[in-house]
Parts: sequence; C-alpha cells; structure tokens
Amino acid sequence: MKQGELAEQLIAWRRDFHQYPEQGFLEIRTASKVAGVLDELGYELALGKEVMTEAGCMGKPGEKETKQHLEWALENGADTRYVEYFAEGYTGIVATLRTAQPGPTIAYRVDMDALPIHESDAADHVPNQAGFRSTATGTMHACGHDSHTSIGLGLATKLAENKDQLSGTIKLIFQPAEEGTRGAKSMAEAGVVDNVDYFIASHIGTGVPHQHFVAASNGFLATSKLNITFKGVAAHAGAKPQEGKNALLAAASAVLNMHAVTRHSDGSSRVNVGELHAGSGRNIIPDYAMLIAETRGETSEINQYVKEQVQSIVDGAAKMYQLNAKVEVAGEALNCDCSLGVAEILKQCAESHPEIAGALLESSDSSGSEDATYFMDRVQRGGGQATYCIFGTELAAGHHNEKFDIHEDTLLPAVEVLYQAAKEIGRIAE
Amino acid sequence: MKQGELAEQLIAWRRDFHQYPEQGFLEIRTASKVAGVLDELGYELALGKEVMTEAGCMGKPGEKETKQHLEWALENGADTRYVEYFAEGYTGIVATLRTAQPGPTIAYRVDMDALPIHESDAADHVPNQAGFRSTATGTMHACGHDSHTSIGLGLATKLAENKDQLSGTIKLIFQPAEEGTRGAKSMAEAGVVDNVDYFIASHIGTGVPHQHFVAASNGFLATSKLNITFKGVAAHAGAKPQEGKNALLAAASAVLNMHAVTRHSDGSSRVNVGELHAGSGRNIIPDYAMLIAETRGETSEINQYVKEQVQSIVDGAAKMYQLNAKVEVAGEALNCDCSLGVAEILKQCAESHPEIAGALLESSDSSGSEDATYFMDRVQRGGGQATYCIFGTELAAGHHNEKFDIHEDTLLPAVEVLYQAAKEIGRIAE
Amino acid sequence: MKQGELAEQLIAWRRDFHQYPEQGFLEIRTASKVAGVLDELGYELALGKEVMTEAGCMGKPGEKETKQHLEWALENGADTRYVEYFAEGYTGIVATLRTAQPGPTIAYRVDMDALPIHESDAADHVPNQAGFRSTATGTMHACGHDSHTSIGLGLATKLAENKDQLSGTIKLIFQPAEEGTRGAKSMAEAGVVDNVDYFIASHIGTGVPHQHFVAASNGFLATSKLNITFKGVAAHAGAKPQEGKNALLAAASAVLNMHAVTRHSDGSSRVNVGELHAGSGRNIIPDYAMLIAETRGETSEINQYVKEQVQSIVDGAAKMYQLNAKVEVAGEALNCDCSLGVAEILKQCAESHPEIAGALLESSDSSGSEDATYFMDRVQRGGGQATYCIFGTELAAGHHNEKFDIHEDTLLPAVEVLYQAAKEIGRIAE
Amino acid sequence: MKQGELAEQLIAWRRDFHQYPEQGFLEIRTASKVAGVLDELGYELALGKEVMTEAGCMGKPGEKETKQHLEWALENGADTRYVEYFAEGYTGIVATLRTAQPGPTIAYRVDMDALPIHESDAADHVPNQAGFRSTATGTMHACGHDSHTSIGLGLATKLAENKDQLSGTIKLIFQPAEEGTRGAKSMAEAGVVDNVDYFIASHIGTGVPHQHFVAASNGFLATSKLNITFKGVAAHAGAKPQEGKNALLAAASAVLNMHAVTRHSDGSSRVNVGELHAGSGRNIIPDYAMLIAETRGETSEINQYVKEQVQSIVDGAAKMYQLNAKVEVAGEALNCDCSLGVAEILKQCAESHPEIAGALLESSDSSGSEDATYFMDRVQRGGGQATYCIFGTELAAGHHNEKFDIHEDTLLPAVEVLYQAAKEIGRIAE
Repeated sequence: MKQGELAEQLIAWRRDFHQYPEQGFLEIRTASKVAGVLDELGYELALGKEVMTEAGCMGKPGEKETKQHLEWALENGADTRYVEYFAEGYTGIVATLRTAQPGPTIAYRVDMDALPIHESDAADHVPNQAGFRSTATGTMHACGHDSHTSIGLGLATKLAENKDQLSGTIKLIFQPAEEGTRGAKSMAEAGVVDNVDYFIASHIGTGVPHQHFVAASNGFLATSKLNITFKGVAAHAGAKPQEGKNALLAAASAVLNMHAVTRHSDGSSRVNVGELHAGSGRNIIPDYAMLIAETRGETSEINQYVKEQVQSIVDGAAKMYQLNAKVEVAGEALNCDCSLGVAEILKQCAESHPEIAGALLESSDSSGSEDATYFMDRVQRGGGQATYCIFGTELAAGHHNEKFDIHEDTLLPAVEVLYQAAKEIGRIAE
Repeated sequence: MKQGELAEQLIAWRRDFHQYPEQGFLEIRTASKVAGVLDELGYELALGKEVMTEAGCMGKPGEKETKQHLEWALENGADTRYVEYFAEGYTGIVATLRTAQPGPTIAYRVDMDALPIHESDAADHVPNQAGFRSTATGTMHACGHDSHTSIGLGLATKLAENKDQLSGTIKLIFQPAEEGTRGAKSMAEAGVVDNVDYFIASHIGTGVPHQHFVAASNGFLATSKLNITFKGVAAHAGAKPQEGKNALLAAASAVLNMHAVTRHSDGSSRVNVGELHAGSGRNIIPDYAMLIAETRGETSEINQYVKEQVQSIVDGAAKMYQLNAKVEVAGEALNCDCSLGVAEILKQCAESHPEIAGALLESSDSSGSEDATYFMDRVQRGGGQATYCIFGTELAAGHHNEKFDIHEDTLLPAVEVLYQAAKEIGRIAE
Repeated sequence: MKQGELAEQLIAWRRDFHQYPEQGFLEIRTASKVAGVLDELGYELALGKEVMTEAGCMGKPGEKETKQHLEWALENGADTRYVEYFAEGYTGIVATLRTAQPGPTIAYRVDMDALPIHESDAADHVPNQAGFRSTATGTMHACGHDSHTSIGLGLATKLAENKDQLSGTIKLIFQPAEEGTRGAKSMAEAGVVDNVDYFIASHIGTGVPHQHFVAASNGFLATSKLNITFKGVAAHAGAKPQEGKNALLAAASAVLNMHAVTRHSDGSSRVNVGELHAGSGRNIIPDYAMLIAETRGETSEINQYVKEQVQSIVDGAAKMYQLNAKVEVAGEALNCDCSLGVAEILKQCAESHPEIAGALLESSDSSGSEDATYFMDRVQRGGGQATYCIFGTELAAGHHNEKFDIHEDTLLPAVEVLYQAAKEIGRIAE
Repeated sequence: MKQGELAEQLIAWRRDFHQYPEQGFLEIRTASKVAGVLDELGYELALGKEVMTEAGCMGKPGEKETKQHLEWALENGADTRYVEYFAEGYTGIVATLRTAQPGPTIAYRVDMDALPIHESDAADHVPNQAGFRSTATGTMHACGHDSHTSIGLGLATKLAENKDQLSGTIKLIFQPAEEGTRGAKSMAEAGVVDNVDYFIASHIGTGVPHQHFVAASNGFLATSKLNITFKGVAAHAGAKPQEGKNALLAAASAVLNMHAVTRHSDGSSRVNVGELHAGSGRNIIPDYAMLIAETRGETSEINQYVKEQVQSIVDGAAKMYQLNAKVEVAGEALNCDCSLGVAEILKQCAESHPEIAGALLESSDSSGSEDATYFMDRVQRGGGQATYCIFGTELAAGHHNEKFDIHEDTLLPAVEVLYQAAKEIGRIAE
C-alpha cells in the first residue's frame, strides 16, 4: 500500500472503530474485523481463549450482557468468520509474523476497548460533524483506543508488506479491556509474551505535545480495582431494628478506615472509594452495600501493602456487624520501569521521522495506571526489554471527556516509527 | 342504597382503586373519582390547593413526574370534570355535609395513596385471580388505602342518605401521601380541622385479628424523613486527589455519627440511614452523596432532639470536608395520644355491630408512624377529641408485601361502625 | 441497748466508717470491724472466700494494690482478729441468726464500699466541721454506704437483742464492691441467698424526700462494665509508619460503632465509652488503646444484646488493624422487678413508724444500676420474694458529689423499720 | 588549647551536659554554662529574649513548670551570672565573633535540649559505667544534643583562639527546644540569621557510619505538631445522656478523618494522632478529649495542605457535637533543600581530615523533621547559603532509645571540620 493510501486507510479504520465502540471484554465486532484484516495479510492467528486465561480476566461482564452485545455486534457488521472465537467475550488476538531471517522476537501491544461515556453531540465535535460519532448510546472511544487499533492494523500491513526486510518474529497483541486495567493479565498469564525479546506498548495523546514523542513513559502506579460487597439482614427500622444486620454501617466504617490506611514510607500510595451504594428503603435496615474502590502504589509492593490493609479492614468491618463481605478484584496493574535500551532505539526512529518535531527518551509524568505493565514485567523477568511510548497529538478535549478527539495526522507517523523500530531492532540484533 | 348494594359497591370501588393505584401527591385519578361521587351525593367540596398549603407538602414529586402521571391518569379513566384541581399534585379533598340539626363538627380522615411496590403475579394472589391486579407497573396498594378510600365513599353515601338522622357538621378529609408521612401536614396547616370537635382516623389490618376492632391505637412514633445531600468537588483519584472535596467521606462520617446519636432518657428513639448513594466512578473523588434517612421518637420532643443532632452532624461532616450539605424534610409525623372519650363511643358502636366479634378500647402495639397525628394534635390543641381506630381483617400477607391483600367483608362493617359513631356523637352532644 | 444509746451508736459507727473509707474489694478495715461486732452479738459468721467465688469477682484490684491497702487497714485500726479472712480482698460477710421458732429465712443486703472521690474540705461540709472527714486521700463515702453499714450493725444489734420475739432464720449479708456493680455476683454465685424466702436490700437517699420511704424501687437498668484493650505495634510515624499496627484507629472505629449499636425495640438501652486512653507519643503509631465503657438495658436481655454487639464491634475493629483485643467484664448487674408482697409488708412497717411521714409502695424513677439485683433474681428464681427499698433523707449534695452528706436522724428509723419487717414476716409466716 | 587538651575538654563538657539534661525551653543550667564559657572567650553575647520572640515559641512549658525547673538548675550548678536571662525559659544564645578582616557572616546552629526519656541503668550502658548517667529522673540526652553543645563550645574555643586567621563575622547560635521542632522559629523570627551569608547546622549520628560525613542532609519533612482539644458537657450516661455533649465521639471522628486526609500528588505526607486521652469516668459522657498529633509533608506546601485539612476536620467534628475545639501549634518545621556550594566546602574540609574515612556531598535518607530549616529557609531567602551536615558516629542504640550513646572520639574531628570550614569560607570569599 502506498503511503497516501495507507494514510487514508488508517483514517477509515479509525473512524469505523470510533463509530462502533465496544467496552472491555465486549470488543466482538472490533476483534472480528481486526482478525479479518490480519488473516488476509497472512498472519498466523491465535484467538480468544487460545490467548487468554479465564481466571486472569478481571471485571468481565456477565453472560447475559455479553450475549446481548453479541447480537449488537452481529447487527453492526461484525465479521462473521471470526465471531465465534470472541462470542463469550474473550476478545484477545495474537497475530504472528515469521520473517525469513532469524532474529529476536518483537511484540507490540494494541488495546481496543471504549469507555462508558456518552459522546458529545455538539456541533463543533469533529466525529459529529464528519458523521462518525458513536452509534452505541453511552459508549465512546474517549481515550483513543480506536486510533490504537487502527495504528495496529497499519503496522501489521507495513510489516507484512516488508517482511523480507525484517528479521526474527513479530507478534501483534490485540488486548481487550485496558480500561479498568482488566484485560492484560489474562493474556500475560496465557504466556503470549513468554520468549519475547522486545516489547513495545504505545499510547496516543496523554498530554504529550502534537508531533512529539516520548520513548519511555515511566511512573505508572500499580493499582488494584476492587468491588467490595457487604451482605447483611434487612429489618424494619422502626419496629424491629435489632433484627437487622446493618451493611451500611459496616460500609461507612470501611470507607473511613480504607482512606485512613497508613502511608508507606517507600513511596506514594492512593486509596479511593469512588462509589458507594447501599440499602433499599428509608425505613429498612440496609442489608447490602457495594463499594467501587481502587488502590494504587508507586511500586507493586506498595499497592500490595495497601490492598492487604483494605482486605483486613473489610473483613473487620464485616465482623463488626456480623455480615458477609467479599472483595472482588475487578482490575489490576503493576508498576514497571521501561527498559531504556529499546526506548533509545525508538527515540532514534522518532527523531529521524520528518513529521516528528521532538523526541524525549524518558518521562515520569504519569500518575495513572496501565495494565500493559503485566506484559512489560513478564518480558523483563524473562530477560527481555520492554517500553511504553507515547505519540503526542493535539487533543480536542482531555482523555475520558465526552468531546475527546485526536488529530488524525498522528496515525501514519506512529505506524512508521513503530515499523522502523522493528526494522532497527532486527538490524541491531544481527 | 340497600345494605347488599352498598356491600357490592364498596367492593367495586376498592377493586377499581386497587387496579389503578397512584403514589403520594399523584392521586389524580383517585381524587377525581372521589370528587365525582361526593359531588353527586351533594357534599360541598373544597379541592386541591383550597385545602392544602404548598409549604406543608413534603417529598412531593417534581413537575415533570407529576405531568407524566397526569397523562396516565387521563388515559386511565380520571374524571375530567375535576382533574384540573388536582393536576399539579395537590390531591386533597374536604367534603362537607351540613345536617339539619345544630351539633358538633365531626371529621373523618381517609388516605388514598399507594406504594412503590411491584404487585405479585402469583396464581394464588386474589387480585391477580380476580382480575384487578395493579395496571401501573411498580405501584401497588399494598397497605390497604384502596379499601380506605372505598370505605370513605361508603361512609359518605350512608351519611348523605341519612342526613336527617344526624346533627352537626360532618367533614370527610381525603388526604394524599400518607406513605412517608408527607401529606397530612399540608392539610392540617391549611386549617381543615380547625373547629373540629371530633376527629376519627381509621386503618384496616395492622395485625388486629379479623372482625376485631381497636378504638384507640396509641404508640405511634413521631418521625422525620430526611433526604440529605453532600456536594463536593470531583478530582482524579490518582493524578490530583488533593483537588477533590470528598463527599463520600463526609457521608460515611455522618452515617456513623447519626447512628451514634445519644439515646434519650425520656423514651425510645430511632435513627436509620436506609440508603446511601455516592460517587460517579471508581477513580474519581466522589463529589456527591445522598442519604435517605429517618428519625423517630416516642414523643415529638424526642424526635425533635434526634433531628437536631442529625442536623449538627450533617453540618459538621460538611465542614470537615469543606462541602455544601442540605437536609431536606421529605416527610414528618407527630406522636399523639388518642382521646379516650371519642374512642369509648367508637368501641360501643363496634361492640354492638353483629359482624364484630371483639372490640378493644386501647392498644399501644404500634411502632410505626402516621401523619394523621398532625390532624389529631391540631384537633386536641383546639379543644376537640381525636382518635385513631383499627378495623382488623384477615391479611393474605403483611403490609407493604407484594402479596398483601385484605378480606373484603371488612368493608361494610367499617362503614357502618363509622356511620354509627357520627350518629351517636350527634345524639350525645344534644 | 436503749433507743437513745442505739441512736448514738449508729452515729458513732457511721462516722467511723466515713472517716476510714475503703473502695470495693478493699473493705478490709470495715469488714473486720463489722465481723467483730457481729461476732460479739453471737452471730454465726461465714467470711471472705467462704461466701464469695473467685470467678464471680469483677474488676477486683490487683495483688499489689490489695497488699498496700492491707497495710493501711492495719495502721488504721482494723480488727486484727478477722483481718486474715479479708486480707486478699474477699471482704464479704454472711452473719446468721437462728431464732428459737421455726420460720422463713429472711436476708438483708448491706454494702460497705466507698468511692474514688476526694472529699470536700469546705468549711460548711459537716464531716469536716465535725471532724470525721475522710482520712484516706482520694477516697470518700459519697454514696452513703457508711450509713448502710451502720444501719446493718444497728439492725444486727436489735435482732440479736430481740431474738426470742422472732421466728425463722435471719441472714445479714455484708457485700463488697457495690460501686461499679462488681461484688454481688460473687456472693450470689457462692449460694448465700439460696433457700432465702424474703430478701431485702435498702439504700439511703437517692432523691426520696426526707422521712419518706419507698418499699419497692423498680427500674434498675441491667448493665455491664467493660474494660476494652487493643494491643498493636508501635512504629515511627514519620520514618516507617507502615510497620505499625494502629491501636488508636481501631479504638476510634470501635467507639463510633459502639455508640451506633442499633436500638432495641423491646426497651431502652445505653452505651457509653466514658474514657479512652491511647498511644505513647506524638510521633509514634499508637500501639495500645484502653476504653472504659459500659452498656445498659431496660432488661437483662437487652443489655446482653448490646454487650454482644460491642463484642463483635471490638473483634471487628481489631481485625481491621490486625490487632489483639480483649473485652474484660469489670462489673455487671441485672434488671429485676421487686416482689410486691414483701414490699407491702415493708410499706406497712414504715407507715406505722412515727418518724416516717410518707411511704410509697413502688417507684420506677431509677435509671441507675444495682448489683443487689443478682441476689434478688436468685431469690425470686428460687421461689422467694425480694425487694429493694429506699429510706429518704435530706442530702447536702447529690450522690457521688464531693459534698455528699446524709441526715443522721434517718439511721434509727431505718433500723427500726427493717427490724419490724423481720418481726412482721415471721408473724405472717406462722 | 592544645589538641589533646581540647579533646579532653570536649568530653568533660559533654558528660557534664549529659549528667544534667534539660528539656526544651528549660535549658537554664545548660545555657548559663554555655554563656559563661563564651563570655570568657570574648564573644559578644545576646541572650534570652534579646534573640527570641515570644510569639515564635511553640509548646513552651507553663510558668509553674519553668519556675520549678529554675530551682533545679540553681541547685545543680547553673552559672548564676547568667541565669536571670534564661529564668523564664527563653534559653537562646547568639554569640558573635568579629574577626580582624572583613568578610562574610557565617553562622553555626547548635541545639541543647534533652528528651523525656528515662535513661537506662543497665550495667553495660557507658554513661552508667562511667558515672555520668542523667541525674534528672525521666529526662535524658538520648539524641546527642549534649555532644552538639560540647562541639559548639569546642568550635567557639578554636575560633576565638585563631581569630586572626579568620575573616568576616562568625555567629554561634545556641537554640532551645529542637525536640518537637519548637525553638528555632522563635530565633529565626527574631532575625538572628538575617544578613547571614553561610549557615551550617550539624548533627551527630543519625545512622551515618562512624568516621563518615554527609555535607548536605536533605529530605527533612516539613511538620506541624498539633495539640487538639475538644471541650463538651458531661452528663450521667445512664440517667440523662442527652444532656451531654460528647467530646470523645467528636475526637474519634476526628482521628479517623485526619488519618483519611487525601494524599497529595506532589509528594509524600503523613498524619499521626500519637495520643488520645478523653473522659473522666465510665458512666459519664466524656466532656473533653485531647489529641497529640502531627502532620508532615515532603514540602512545606504539602504539610500546610494537610494541616489545613486537619483544621477543617477538627472544626467539623466539633460542630457535629456542638463542642468547642482548639488546635494549638506545639511545634513546626519546614522542608528545605541544602545549598550545595557551602556543602561542597564542608565536604572538602571533611575529606582532608585524617580521622574521617569518607565524605558524601548529599544524602536524602532522612524522613524526620528539623527546625534548623527555619534558619536555612531564612538564610536562603536572604540570598545566603545554608546546609545541614552529619558527623557519623558509632551508636550504642538508636536515637531516642534509653541506651542511646555516641562514640566520644567523634567530638574533636567535628570541631575541626566545622572550624576548617569557617577558615575556608573566609579564604574563598576574599
């Protein structure tokens, strides 16, 4: 594909995914389309449960919701040749390209999921103007994963077309459910990055200026996403209050004490109970409470420390009121430092790209979390190198905002820098 | 109307109201039907805002909800001659009958509202079998107010037909929104029981055995229904937690401390936060929290004491986190002791009724609340007598249960005892 | 002894005990003096551990404190003939008088302990004026038990002197540690009221007017006195906070939740954490916390309910912070209703006494607690009758006040009424 | 003084101060002795309130305690010539040496106070063996400030003796109450370091290895020491609980919420309530509570943020229970980064000393707090340079331990390095 054609194709893909956004573990239409393109390009495919463990999935929607969404996907253009692999919500893909020459194994991580956000219908919102606003009410690609998927397919195209100029093995990992850091663990545990020598995850935007590049984005906080439930006994609050077991009092105690978890002297930590819903009526002793919470830590150890305190607090609060409590892990990510070796290669590739105005080796500005860290950690423990890079772009509004939008001329340079890195890594490794 | 006809009519009315249940301040269809019957019987009518103050209404639904319900009422048989009086949700009625002879003013209180309960569709549930199950999904007459309205109309009929055997003035007060103790205050403050000498409120069921009667049901707890909101500032829980003002932490502190309000040595009290809803996402500092709460007291003074403590606690919790807080009174009732004089008359009327097997002067078993106490308190302060009586009936399931049902042969005796009391009071007063 | 002599002797005894007050389980001097008088009067004595179980003693001072006090008692006139029985702080006495005639067993309860209050040295405080102010710094008879002991000895004298006019068996029970409701259980469990037919406990003052009498003082709340400790791990709050296990956070959670224990619909209840002491330095994670608490209930069952909730809350709070916690019962009393039969006899005896102006059968004004209820409950369960009566007296200041003082002319009538009751009970039982 | 003599004198001074330790704002004996030595050496002295503001003193003992200690100081060898300046507890000293040559102003900070720790009487504890264990029961030099005072006097001696080899002005600042970070603010606000060009504070030990030196010890946390009191109303917990205003419930709420203060994304923070004491009896609603607390922050801004949240929480908790609350600042310190220029000079001086095996420019291991930061901050804001250096020594036990002890052969090298720095700074500045 010529450069101009590829640029157009990238935009077409991105707008298609934008128009049909799918949330985590429900990327059935998206994954089927991706599989179709990769299959046609000649990649060796491993799909769904072949590349995901059941136990590793966190915060996966229930069977009913998945089935309903499957119908939506089929009605909205899912590629029926591949839907069966993804029908139960295991929507991961590993596409492998074996080049002619021996060489290292290089893996790229691509995420595909959208957010539970209602997209703006404002007149000045480009997707609205240009006719590719979300058709799925309440779901929106407000973090740029539509462009990631598009870049992933562009990269796949370029790699396949230039296979003979490359060496080693290349794996493209399309991951579900990055939002909420729910999907990567399942693929990492299935072994998809075992024996990978170089691992590259990338993101668009995140505050990096337009046409700028960061080769190693450090500072992700390890995190655990926790759904906590207390189950008690209801009773009439006027007539027989003593017969109740009050789940809200336990929850309120848990909330206060979770936020009071002692700071760790090794680094920063966070606790947030983002939502609490309890009780079923004014005059009824509340018999259940649900907390939507998260912990974070500057290191995986600190996050683990906080998580353990939270578990104790929840157990104790339940004991106080003679309740049952459950802490369900609905998402998790590690902290991981980028390998500067591979980052340096990426930086050089970016610097030599005419459309990129500036490239930084390392930045630590992040204070969010990313489950690409599961892959990175596993690669590094296996002796490989891993980095997380950022392609700056002009944003119409911040990530997770209903008016979020990227600048589409970032797509092609991203593909080219990532492609160039594969070529360069192969060259160096010879 | 002959006794047999009246018995049939009572059942017909009750089943009609049961089939078209309406919640508090939305009794538009019901009130219009009631007004129609009373008008035809020759009662002098005062409707809607003529008998209710705006300020006295507590927990009244918003304009939008009221409008939507108005449409439903019109579609479901509301009497269009009277709908305009009730269209904004002021659904109270005072019907006055002036007899030929001078004499005391006697008032009867009738409530008309249903509950937000989904009625059972079980095969053994009589309203289902007999074809008068609720047609309004999620709303059900599960406390017997349908039968109260029917009894009220039956009593109106009998009084009007026997007007020349009576003396004094008789007022029938049809009150909205007894559930949540929201409607009586508005009518009491409008003065509808000023100058009333004898006041009688009645209820069906409540655990009193079938064909038994209690003339004075004491022990109602004074209560306040409180909707409490905390409004803070959202912030990203990972990136800038310090920029948030955490409404959930304030709410959790308020919940614990509200339940910890010191007991009062003068009598029993209650506090319950029945529901708490806070926050909008896992990784966002919660910027709002809503508590659905209630206080109760063995006396109105104790309830007032608890309510004042709750106000302090809410204000303090808001100050802790630099938030705005609001405590809205969504319902309120007093504690009030029945006047045994009028109760004794009722007891005698009940005892002489062939269908009533036993009559008790006084019982204190209640631990619920009733806003008829607003009328009772006002009547007693004005020098009159007031009581709250119970017509026992066989219940299919407890009040507020989805399978609640009464025994319809209780309707006629109830009408007759209440009618007899009016006659007797008139006679004595001569 | 003539009436005039007895009146003087009562005052002498009372002032002696007032001047040498001893706190609960330390009444060594007092008990030895009492034993001496009773022995000389010819009573059959059972002393110390003969009439007390070890396990039943609650909140008993430690060995060291007891030894120190023993020395004080010896230095201040303890009767060395009996000290050995009481030296370890088991200071109960049962004195039995067997009359010539057969008849019922009548028991009287007398308490002897003082309070940890520093007696006033104001010029207008009678004990100060008259030279019998407490010589034990920080300990004071501020509840009238000095007069109880004196009345007990006066009663013993009168009974012994008039033995031949009486029938049946009479037991005088001198109980330690009524303050904090710590001592009665131990004697009740030792069986000292088993087979008792009539049991009479009495108190002076308590708000009953001078020269008035209440034969049955009902309304005592059941109570448990709880010493609660949390034991954690200290750590430097700046350098290694995460190494601590914070006992204060657990204690604060426990305090809030204990006060939030749901009210019981069967009757009133109370919880109070009267004191909390935690931590050892500003920059150290607190490794211990101690709560001085109490629960109360209108019935023993309600108190038990509250106590069980407290235990759960303490266990849960400990679990929250991975601590050890201990709930020690430092005192306990039951709720018990007086038997009106024996109360009626007492009332008649009081009414016929020339110095008593008014006698009431029953009063329920109390909202305190009394461990005489252990005896009362045991007597009633064994088929006997029990009552708790009050001799009104003019008080200089309220009970437990540093200027508390009684009117000494109440002593003789109290002895005479109690004596008369024994005579009357014997007469009736014939 | 020859080197050998000086070495002996240093040990003698240190042991004298160790034997007569004095806590913050009570260093009357110590300061008088210091003033005597400095006066004899020819320093220009400014004493007590001449160099301290009243308002700047934090956590200063009351008048009574100060007077009692004054007597102790006089009985234990205070230099009566100077005692009057320090008698009210303003124990700061500024000693100025004007050299012949013009040059910069150099200031040294020396702290003098001891800790409320009971010194070990173990046989292996050197001060015990060698006969200079604390004679002031419950007070101990357990942080090495005795050696700081000794080094300060040794430095004064050496500077005075070699005055003609130096240039500029030299100020020795002897500061009270470093423990609890209470004393420096008062002297800084009095202007004692205004116009200072080079400022050097030093500490012994702190984990730096024996014979090693750190020229710039960074990482001090800004801190506020807070004494928080809640004042309510007592009431009998059984009879009239509703008449109380419960200070303990407010305190418990404050404790939980203070620990729950949201983390700051700019850096680490700490909150600790080290002690809580509340209430006066088991059956009394607690009418007061006292919290001994501290906040810390990686920067002064973060500490300020935490302190402001604490203030809100305390105000809110008081409002909850209708109490009065007070937050008193009992100590405070800033965060401040060392100036590397002057640190480099110190490092070179240390490196060229034969007894010092290793010197580090900078370390950030600290997680404690120091109020020398008040001086440092003021010097740097005035355009000067400031550093905080550490003389490593072998410790018998950690700081603030009852068996803390230093190695006395560290004293002389410390004096010589600090002296050398003055000489070198003068030389460079020419």
